[in-house]
Amino acid sequence: METTNGSLNRKLRMALCGGGQGSFIGRVHATAAVLDNRAALVAGALSSNPEKAKASAPAYDISEERAYGSYDEMVEKEMKLPEGERIDFVSVATPNHTHFPIAKCALEAGINVICDKPMTFDFAQAEEMVAAVEKSGAVFAVSHNYTGYPLVRQAREMILSGELGEIQAIRSNYIQGWLRTKLEDSDQKQAAWRTDPSKSGAAGAFGDIGTHAYNLGRYMTGLFPEEVSCHLKSMVEGRALDDYGHAVIRMENGGLMTVTASQISHGRENDLFIEVDGTKKALQWKQENPNEMIVRENGQPHKIYTRDPNAPFMTPLAASSCRLPAGHPEAFFEAFANVYRFAYDAMVLRAEGKEFEKKDTIYPNVYDGAEGMYFIQQCVASSKENGAWLPMKYEKARR
Amino acid sequence: METTNGSLNRKLRMALCGGGQGSFIGRVHATAAVLDNRAALVAGALSSNPEKAKASAPAYDISEERAYGSYDEMVEKEMKLPEGERIDFVSVATPNHTHFPIAKCALEAGINVICDKPMTFDFAQAEEMVAAVEKSGAVFAVSHNYTGYPLVRQAREMILSGELGEIQAIRSNYIQGWLRTKLEDSDQKQAAWRTDPSKSGAAGAFGDIGTHAYNLGRYMTGLFPEEVSCHLKSMVEGRALDDYGHAVIRMENGGLMTVTASQISHGRENDLFIEVDGTKKALQWKQENPNEMIVRENGQPHKIYTRDPNAPFMTPLAASSCRLPAGHPEAFFEAFANVYRFAYDAMVLRAEGKEFEKKDTIYPNVYDGAEGMYFIQQCVASSKENGAWLPMKYEKARR
Amino acid sequence: METTNGSLNRKLRMALCGGGQGSFIGRVHATAAVLDNRAALVAGALSSNPEKAKASAPAYDISEERAYGSYDEMVEKEMKLPEGERIDFVSVATPNHTHFPIAKCALEAGINVICDKPMTFDFAQAEEMVAAVEKSGAVFAVSHNYTGYPLVRQAREMILSGELGEIQAIRSNYIQGWLRTKLEDSDQKQAAWRTDPSKSGAAGAFGDIGTHAYNLGRYMTGLFPEEVSCHLKSMVEGRALDDYGHAVIRMENGGLMTVTASQISHGRENDLFIEVDGTKKALQWKQENPNEMIVRENGQPHKIYTRDPNAPFMTPLAASSCRLPAGHPEAFFEAFANVYRFAYDAMVLRAEGKEFEKKDTIYPNVYDGAEGMYFIQQCVASSKENGAWLPMKYEKARR
Amino acid sequence: METTNGSLNRKLRMALCGGGQGSFIGRVHATAAVLDNRAALVAGALSSNPEKAKASAPAYDISEERAYGSYDEMVEKEMKLPEGERIDFVSVATPNHTHFPIAKCALEAGINVICDKPMTFDFAQAEEMVAAVEKSGAVFAVSHNYTGYPLVRQAREMILSGELGEIQAIRSNYIQGWLRTKLEDSDQKQAAWRTDPSKSGAAGAFGDIGTHAYNLGRYMTGLFPEEVSCHLKSMVEGRALDDYGHAVIRMENGGLMTVTASQISHGRENDLFIEVDGTKKALQWKQENPNEMIVRENGQPHKIYTRDPNAPFMTPLAASSCRLPAGHPEAFFEAFANVYRFAYDAMVLRAEGKEFEKKDTIYPNVYDGAEGMYFIQQCVASSKENGAWLPMKYEKARR
Repeated sequence: METTNGSLNRKLRMALCGGGQGSFIGRVHATAAVLDNRAALVAGALSSNPEKAKASAPAYDISEERAYGSYDEMVEKEMKLPEGERIDFVSVATPNHTHFPIAKCALEAGINVICDKPMTFDFAQAEEMVAAVEKSGAVFAVSHNYTGYPLVRQAREMILSGELGEIQAIRSNYIQGWLRTKLEDSDQKQAAWRTDPSKSGAAGAFGDIGTHAYNLGRYMTGLFPEEVSCHLKSMVEGRALDDYGHAVIRMENGGLMTVTASQISHGRENDLFIEVDGTKKALQWKQENPNEMIVRENGQPHKIYTRDPNAPFMTPLAASSCRLPAGHPEAFFEAFANVYRFAYDAMVLRAEGKEFEKKDTIYPNVYDGAEGMYFIQQCVASSKENGAWLPMKYEKARR
Repeated sequence: METTNGSLNRKLRMALCGGGQGSFIGRVHATAAVLDNRAALVAGALSSNPEKAKASAPAYDISEERAYGSYDEMVEKEMKLPEGERIDFVSVATPNHTHFPIAKCALEAGINVICDKPMTFDFAQAEEMVAAVEKSGAVFAVSHNYTGYPLVRQAREMILSGELGEIQAIRSNYIQGWLRTKLEDSDQKQAAWRTDPSKSGAAGAFGDIGTHAYNLGRYMTGLFPEEVSCHLKSMVEGRALDDYGHAVIRMENGGLMTVTASQISHGRENDLFIEVDGTKKALQWKQENPNEMIVRENGQPHKIYTRDPNAPFMTPLAASSCRLPAGHPEAFFEAFANVYRFAYDAMVLRAEGKEFEKKDTIYPNVYDGAEGMYFIQQCVASSKENGAWLPMKYEKARR
Repeated sequence: METTNGSLNRKLRMALCGGGQGSFIGRVHATAAVLDNRAALVAGALSSNPEKAKASAPAYDISEERAYGSYDEMVEKEMKLPEGERIDFVSVATPNHTHFPIAKCALEAGINVICDKPMTFDFAQAEEMVAAVEKSGAVFAVSHNYTGYPLVRQAREMILSGELGEIQAIRSNYIQGWLRTKLEDSDQKQAAWRTDPSKSGAAGAFGDIGTHAYNLGRYMTGLFPEEVSCHLKSMVEGRALDDYGHAVIRMENGGLMTVTASQISHGRENDLFIEVDGTKKALQWKQENPNEMIVRENGQPHKIYTRDPNAPFMTPLAASSCRLPAGHPEAFFEAFANVYRFAYDAMVLRAEGKEFEKKDTIYPNVYDGAEGMYFIQQCVASSKENGAWLPMKYEKARR
Repeated sequence: METTNGSLNRKLRMALCGGGQGSFIGRVHATAAVLDNRAALVAGALSSNPEKAKASAPAYDISEERAYGSYDEMVEKEMKLPEGERIDFVSVATPNHTHFPIAKCALEAGINVICDKPMTFDFAQAEEMVAAVEKSGAVFAVSHNYTGYPLVRQAREMILSGELGEIQAIRSNYIQGWLRTKLEDSDQKQAAWRTDPSKSGAAGAFGDIGTHAYNLGRYMTGLFPEEVSCHLKSMVEGRALDDYGHAVIRMENGGLMTVTASQISHGRENDLFIEVDGTKKALQWKQENPNEMIVRENGQPHKIYTRDPNAPFMTPLAASSCRLPAGHPEAFFEAFANVYRFAYDAMVLRAEGKEFEKKDTIYPNVYDGAEGMYFIQQCVASSKENGAWLPMKYEKARR
């Protein structure tokens, strides 16, 4: 487990946007970012409400003077600090509609960004974000955190190496139950903004978790989409956004991908489950039991790959994404931290003035984020047109 | 476990069509039919090849004189036997294209029929079959055998009683891998006819197993369909029929059902898996582990219902569909036999000149079979029209 | 699936002892015995109460004249029938204390016997049974039915072939919950005799299910025991026999086997679970999910062997113990029937005057049954002596 | 998730002993200790080799001046620092034989201690440790980290509240495979000291993991032991300590506990599995799948309790031991951190001069550690005496 940042020889300095009281994902970012002792949280704009922002700082051990009332104040003041003190990156963990202005502000100041997903409010913003990242030369990662699980990376590398043969079918489902009732009518902060089109964007379940399921299928397989037919539903009466949805995606190679997202399935917690069928082998993985993956081949015993950094079957990347030996389960925080960890490698290279990969990154990048926004846009549009087939090729998407 | 047939006080006499060497499902019928000691296999037309038909008889302990060379010969000669000797019912376990002529011949002679699925070659034949059954007054069951599992019946009764609330989503998948290679090019009898449009009908995977998945969703929930959009694929190059398919079905009540059928998923055996989401509870069941079902409700521990005939939570029908106490696993044969068992009840009533239920039967009936054929027809048509929405309301379908 | 009996060319004729109303295992024998169409139930002494015996006959389709009032009457009268009509074998499915007199009576008439387990009331009787079998030359099988599961046989053959290396540890547990309350005080027939020392013998849980767990370990591994230390408890107050017990067994090769049997574990159904550790590989199998077995080897993905008669990894015996393809689950009845099926092979050989294997049989034989009785005797004695080490070597036991 | 330390209003300052290159558990302590942002690692004596100790400091971000060459140097120099700078506690993550001198040195200086398990080299040392802790008034926790899992605490509270009734049986197994080969003959640091009696103590597998399994049974149930009979084996030829062992423990209330520990079971990773049978309910939990626990009751569906801090069924302590909502799996690090977190509460109270609980603590304390050493001592002794029953009552053990 690395703890320094190579020849940089210091911790990276982090600022957090969002994470005030009632927040869920802000705390996750803060915990994941420092798990490997490579970064320290030193500044924050923890709420859009300046008073709340400052009041939340002690809980993160952020000093009073660096607990800012707004993100633009933060960027402005941090940039005036000596180079050896100012922040290296901003983590954006706010409701969706504010991701873009915050990230853009940081990028324009040359600050690296780790941005929550969905990356922006809509696809137009996403395209602007791509331009802003390209212009800035900064490191930009999107927290499609499920890509951080060691066995997800193992699956990706097995597939990209051709071990599964040609991929012909992907079934990626993300099933939850927490919005089974109209929670947004109560005071639940999470439910309130996630079901509000003015904060969440054009999609509900499909924006919040459908994108994860889609991203996982894309990240694991590298398969490229061609067109999509989608069906979104608001199963809970009076809800403004979809809480159940299903997309059929024709892939460029003739394969078929299906994506289901639900927030209304009783008792289902965070059940992201993917199956991939290749001509040579098939595999499946389930987020709630992330330390194992099943690989099947006709005529052979089914194989359970466990997360085992010492096993000969693990790829070097997957092994290096582990922190504990087999049987000592790793989970959500560690996977989240793996998005950070590999973005840190790029940040260190950048800080040292070196080249770093921008498109075919291990972590999800701005192109992945933009593709996710395109997916949402086309799904919502297809659903409105009775499931019409709409194009899904985003030219800048990674292949 | 009942063994007599009530006041009838004798075993029912069975004839088998199909089941000659290389057959799979014929032997299953023969075994399931006698499991409860309520029937005896006394006659057969075991192959379309008369010589093979006769040669196969000893393996079923069918006497030489009742081993017929063809089904029409069988029906004709059996009807000439004294009433106390002649067959009560015919089980049709032949390739799909011959189901209809065989069943029709039996029905016209007033003989009860247990027919394999898909029920006919096409929907037009299915409608003729409905008419033939209605005219005959005979008992007619279709071997949608998965409805015979005790926990499937438990699920059905829990749902119909309203325990799960309004059903809003059904995901029913049937995943296999055995046709991953082009097995039909070798000498494999099963693969040969199941991938041949002239014997199997218009659909491959969707006819063979997609119908089971659809039927299971309909049987469990009673939810009525409105329209279907379907995507069928032949993933194995050169295959004449679909080996992978996916249907989205809008239900009359606004709910959404999705059906996936695959024959090309490496290592997958016979993985029929269904999830049902209601407003009050959700449940899931998996054919390969049929003795348990999971029921979930937000805020409650998840509940594993095991097949336990002595448990207070089992419905009377589900309990009476068991033969063994909990923990003594029951499986495929027993479920298959449960289709027979409950059809026998009707046959006994008929033999005694009494009324018996014809539509809302415990076992799958001719209307279910016809609905399955309509499903195949509309799926194939929708797929040909690029996934166009086509109507799925079959007026005679059970509600 | 064979259905004839080779050159014998007729069904074997079966008589059933036990199986009257309220019986559980009698019906299981009757169903399993005919599953493969190789035998017919033609006679019975279904209860120790002659009236009940005769009244129970119709439920088994046994004719009035062959529904006998007692087992000795049955043996006597059957032996007077012409050779072509009289029974070939008797299945003994009565409470434990009557196994011996019934089996002995049949053996002395030269009739083959399938006997329930535990084989006798005590070990002294078991030794007499061995003598009686040896003298008779008849086929004798004991219904340690769990040996009939295809994957148990697969495990046995993999182990005996050396694939797992030297076996060093066996953990075999059989956990139930049905006697958690003092059911014997109510009218439950099963509980009544199984907790009654005068009918069940010296042990309760250890006699009823501990023997199964022990037998499974012995059958799977072929490892030979040296000595045993045992601890039996009656957890339910006032119960006459043990309902929980644990034995530690030192094996001849230095390995260690532990056996736990419980009837008082809430909600546990019929949970027979075994783990075997070898120097090269380890495996585990669970009766309640009998169609899969896990095989592990350091540094390799864990392997799930499913019951798949067509898979290259299945041994010929294990494959021939299947009736259905993979994914079509087989279960309790089929395993039970596999004890019968392989005993039938021996009966056919005997009927044809040929030699047949008597010690190293596929089915559990009289030596296995006797070893089980020795196990019970030594466990009870050890427990009474505070867990003292007592010898476990039974000289006639199979190696 | 709390991040401050209440009115103390500062992070606690931590020193680490052990954790140099090749160490496994040192890094785990360092990561777990700071997970909740309540402590900072500021000093260390990272190796018994002074040069290696200093060389390892950067990897922990420990400044050069506080990277000490030995634990006594560290304690001496830290105590000379101003009160507002010096360490609050020492984490001892060294091989077993050095736990005691290090901890004693710290305790005598009044420094709190988090000590790895087994707590000492032998039971005599453990008794001295108890005296040292009692004399010091310091907080002392032992890293029986599995007690930190939220569902383990949930189980404990359900059991202590009487929900399971009287506990009659506990089966606690800890199965690993990593020492299947004689790894100590290679250069593997972990294997080397853990199989060396001069560093590990009198027991191998039983000291390393058997104590965890025993502690888990004791912690979950509160049941008190009476006597033990134990069987230890060195399955790998030439190994100095046991690598497989089994203990039978008679509990004071008449219940029976069995403990199995293995390091030689192929492919088994870190499989700590416990089953508890009560008169009213039974439960089971498995460390490798720690976010669920199964609770069973005769006649009821089995219940899967998932780690869900928002569910009404969770006890307040178990809920407060969670950091993430249900379905976002938590694992090894979080459980480990929960030992720290609750010890921190006591440290804060102590720092503020307040009373804190010393015996019935949420975290494992010195009495638990001492009981573990007594368990090891009696197991080793019993095994040497052929499994003789030896007393297991440790008078200071918690009840």
